[in-house]
Amino acid sequence: MIDKNHCLILDEQDPLAHLRQQFTLPDGVIYLDGNSLGARPRNAGERARRVIEQEWGDGLIRSWNSAGWQKLPQRLGDRLAALIGADAGEVAITDTTSINLFKVLSAALQVQAGREPQRRVIVSESSNFPSDLYIAEGLIRMLGQGYSLRLVDSPQQLPAAIGQDTAVVMLTHVNYKSGYMHDMSEMTGAIHAAGALSIWDLAHSAGAVPVELKRSGADYAIGCTYKYLNGGPGAPAFLWVAPALCDLVPQPLSGWFGHARPFDMATHYQPGSGIVRYLCGTQPIVSLAMVECGMDIFAQTDMQSLRRKSLALSDLFIQRVEQRCAGYDLELITPRDHARRGSHVSFAHPEGYAVIQALIARGVIGDYREPGIMRFGFTPLYNCFSDVWQAVEILAQILEHKTWSQAQFQVRHSVT
Amino acid sequence: MIDKNHCLILDEQDPLAHLRQQFTLPDGVIYLDGNSLGARPRNAGERARRVIEQEWGDGLIRSWNSAGWQKLPQRLGDRLAALIGADAGEVAITDTTSINLFKVLSAALQVQAGREPQRRVIVSESSNFPSDLYIAEGLIRMLGQGYSLRLVDSPQQLPAAIGQDTAVVMLTHVNYKSGYMHDMSEMTGAIHAAGALSIWDLAHSAGAVPVELKRSGADYAIGCTYKYLNGGPGAPAFLWVAPALCDLVPQPLSGWFGHARPFDMATHYQPGSGIVRYLCGTQPIVSLAMVECGMDIFAQTDMQSLRRKSLALSDLFIQRVEQRCAGYDLELITPRDHARRGSHVSFAHPEGYAVIQALIARGVIGDYREPGIMRFGFTPLYNCFSDVWQAVEILAQILEHKTWSQAQFQVRHSVT
Repeated sequence: MIDKNHCLILDEQDPLAHLRQQFTLPDGVIYLDGNSLGARPRNAGERARRVIEQEWGDGLIRSWNSAGWQKLPQRLGDRLAALIGADAGEVAITDTTSINLFKVLSAALQVQAGREPQRRVIVSESSNFPSDLYIAEGLIRMLGQGYSLRLVDSPQQLPAAIGQDTAVVMLTHVNYKSGYMHDMSEMTGAIHAAGALSIWDLAHSAGAVPVELKRSGADYAIGCTYKYLNGGPGAPAFLWVAPALCDLVPQPLSGWFGHARPFDMATHYQPGSGIVRYLCGTQPIVSLAMVECGMDIFAQTDMQSLRRKSLALSDLFIQRVEQRCAGYDLELITPRDHARRGSHVSFAHPEGYAVIQALIARGVIGDYREPGIMRFGFTPLYNCFSDVWQAVEILAQILEHKTWSQAQFQVRHSVT
Repeated sequence: MIDKNHCLILDEQDPLAHLRQQFTLPDGVIYLDGNSLGARPRNAGERARRVIEQEWGDGLIRSWNSAGWQKLPQRLGDRLAALIGADAGEVAITDTTSINLFKVLSAALQVQAGREPQRRVIVSESSNFPSDLYIAEGLIRMLGQGYSLRLVDSPQQLPAAIGQDTAVVMLTHVNYKSGYMHDMSEMTGAIHAAGALSIWDLAHSAGAVPVELKRSGADYAIGCTYKYLNGGPGAPAFLWVAPALCDLVPQPLSGWFGHARPFDMATHYQPGSGIVRYLCGTQPIVSLAMVECGMDIFAQTDMQSLRRKSLALSDLFIQRVEQRCAGYDLELITPRDHARRGSHVSFAHPEGYAVIQALIARGVIGDYREPGIMRFGFTPLYNCFSDVWQAVEILAQILEHKTWSQAQFQVRHSVT
C-alpha cells in the first residue's frame, strides 16, 4: 500500500518537478482542473504588459507590422504544430473551437460533394462535447439538401455507423466527460476505408497526450489553447488541415485575413494558399500573444515525458481513491487502460455535485458534469504526486463525514 | 486665415480636452489613425493585470462565475448599447466583425426565406469594406440556390438596385476609405419600403458619430471595438439585432454559448432567447475585459459633444490642407457636407503611399489605402486642434520639399 512518504519520494525523483515553478498557483489550492482552464504561466503578466504598453501604447497601428501581429496566428501555430504531430505552416491559432469546427466541417462536406455527392451523413458520438454537435446541427440546418447527423452511443458502435452514405466522421479524441481516448490512427484508418473524412477535436488532447496528426493520417483537427496549453481564459483556438486537402476548397467564413492578398482590398475573395485561408477576421492580440507563454514552457520538455507523468498521476489517483474511498458509491468512468485514457479521471457519485462543491471549499478544485460526474484533471506541468495524495485524503474525509451535505453551493456551472 | 494661436485657444476652450489625459500617447507622435486602431486607455494595463493575476491566476476556473466572465459579452454589450442607440440586453461583444456579419446575414436570409423566398439578392456597394463582401460571397457559395450579390458603385445607385428580388441590403454606415456617411434612417426607410432587411456595419461609426439604431428602424448591426472605442488590438467585435427579429430564426454558428441552457450539456441545440443566441464559443477574456476601459471614458461624455468636436477637427484639417497645401495635387475624397461625413478625412495624391510614409517618419501617423488615398482619423477623445495644425504644417513641408521621395518605405500594409 502506497503511503504519503512514497508520494514525496516520487515528487523528489520527478524530472519535471521544476516546471511547476513556472506557474503561479494560489496558496492552499490543489488545482485539478487544468482540463478546463489551465493555470497561469508566471510570465503571462509580463507578456501582456509588453503587448499593452509597448506594442499597443507606443507602437500603435505600426505594431501590426513591427511587432508581428499580422502573422501571429501562423507564428504561434508553427510552435503548436510540434505538439500535435503537424508541420510548420499547417496550423493557425485563431477564433474559437466551435467556429473552427464550422470551417473544417464545411470544407470537408464540400470536398465530399465534389467527389461522392451522395455522402451526406456526418457521424459522431452522442457523448461528444455538445458544442461540436450544435455546430454540426447549425451547418446541416443551413445546408438542407439531405445532410444529416448520425450519433452513436458508444465508440464500439462507430464502425457499423460509418458507411457509403458517410461524408465525415467528427470525433473528440479524448472525451470531455469520461476521459476515454480514441486510437486516432486506427479510427482514421477505418474512416478512410469507408470513404469518409475525419475531423478530430483535440480540446482535451493538445498538450495532454501525444498526438500524431500526420502519422495517423488525419484530415482535419481543431482544438483549444486554454486547457492543457495554458493559453489563458478563452484564448484563441487552433485548427489544422492536412496539406493534401487544404487548397481543394475555400471555407465559408471567408474574411479578409484569409484572402490571398488582403491589402489589395480587392472586391472579390480569393483564398490564400495553405492554412491562411482558414483565417477570417482580426484576432484579439493580447489574448493571442499570451498563448506563447504556455508554448515556452512546453518547449522545455516533450510530450512523451509529460505523458509518462500524466499516467503516473492518474494511476495513483485511481488507486488511492479505490483504496481510501471504498464503500462510498464512487464509480470510475474513465478507462483503466492507458491506451484509452486521456489526462483526466472521472468518478460518478450520486451526490457528485455536492461533493465537488465540498472539495472546492477545501481547496481541491475539480469540476462537475451532469449526471453526477466529478472530473479531476492531471497536468504534469504543475501537478505533483503529493497533490494527488492530499486530494484523495480530503475527498475521503468529505465522503466519510458527509460534509458535502452542508457545503455551500456556489458554482453549479463552470465552463469546460 | 486661421493661425496657430487660434488653435491653441480652441484647445484651451475645448470642454473635452481633459479626456486626453486618460490615454497614453507616445511623445512626438500626432496620432491620426484612431479610425484604424484606437489609442490605449491609461487604465488598460491595470485592468489586464487584474484579469491575469487575480481572476485567472488566483481565481482560476472559479472566475467564470465569481469574476463574471460568463456574462461578459452581454454586460459589456449593455454598456455599448447606449452609444449606438440600442437598449440593454440587445447587444453582445463577441467574436470578430466578419464572423458576426456571417451570423446576421445568414439570419436575415433565413427570415426572408420564411416570408418571401423569391428574395435572394444581397445588395451592397463595391466600395464596401472588402471583408464584408468576402463574407457575403462565402455565404452565397455555401447556400447556392440562386443567392447572389449585387454591387453598386455609388450610394446614389442604391435605390434603383433594391427591388422585389432583394433580401438584404448590407451597408457600412461610414465608408472605410472615403469617410462618406449614409443617412441611416432615410436609407433604412427605403430598404424597408422595398421589402428588404438592412444590415449596418458600424466599424467606423461606433464611438465616432451618433448612431440611432432603433430610432432609424435598422434590422441588424455589427461593428468593431478596436477603432474609435479604443478596446485594444483585435478586441472582440459586437452585434445587435432588432428585438422583433431576434428570436425568429437561429443563426448557423450555433455554439454552446448561444444555447438556452448551455450547462445542461444537452445533445441537441436549442437557441437561447434574445441576443444570447448570437453567441457561439468561449471568448478571449483578457482582450474582452479591456474593452471596458474605453467604455469607462465614453461614460464621461456624450456622443453629441464628441461629434461637435470631431467635425470641428475635420473642418479645420480640410480648411488648413486646402490653404497650406494648395497646388500639390491633393484631392479631397471625403464629403464636405457634415451630414455625409464620418470622423476621418481622406485625400488622394499620386504619391499618397510615399507621402504617408514620410508623415509617419515625422511622427504624424495616418494610414494609406489603395489607390493613392491618405486617411486621417480625428478622435475627439484624444486629438486636439494643435495636433491638426502641426500635422498640416508637416504635410506641407513634405509636399513642398518632396521629402517623401526619400522616405524609407517600411510599412506598406497596415490593418484597417
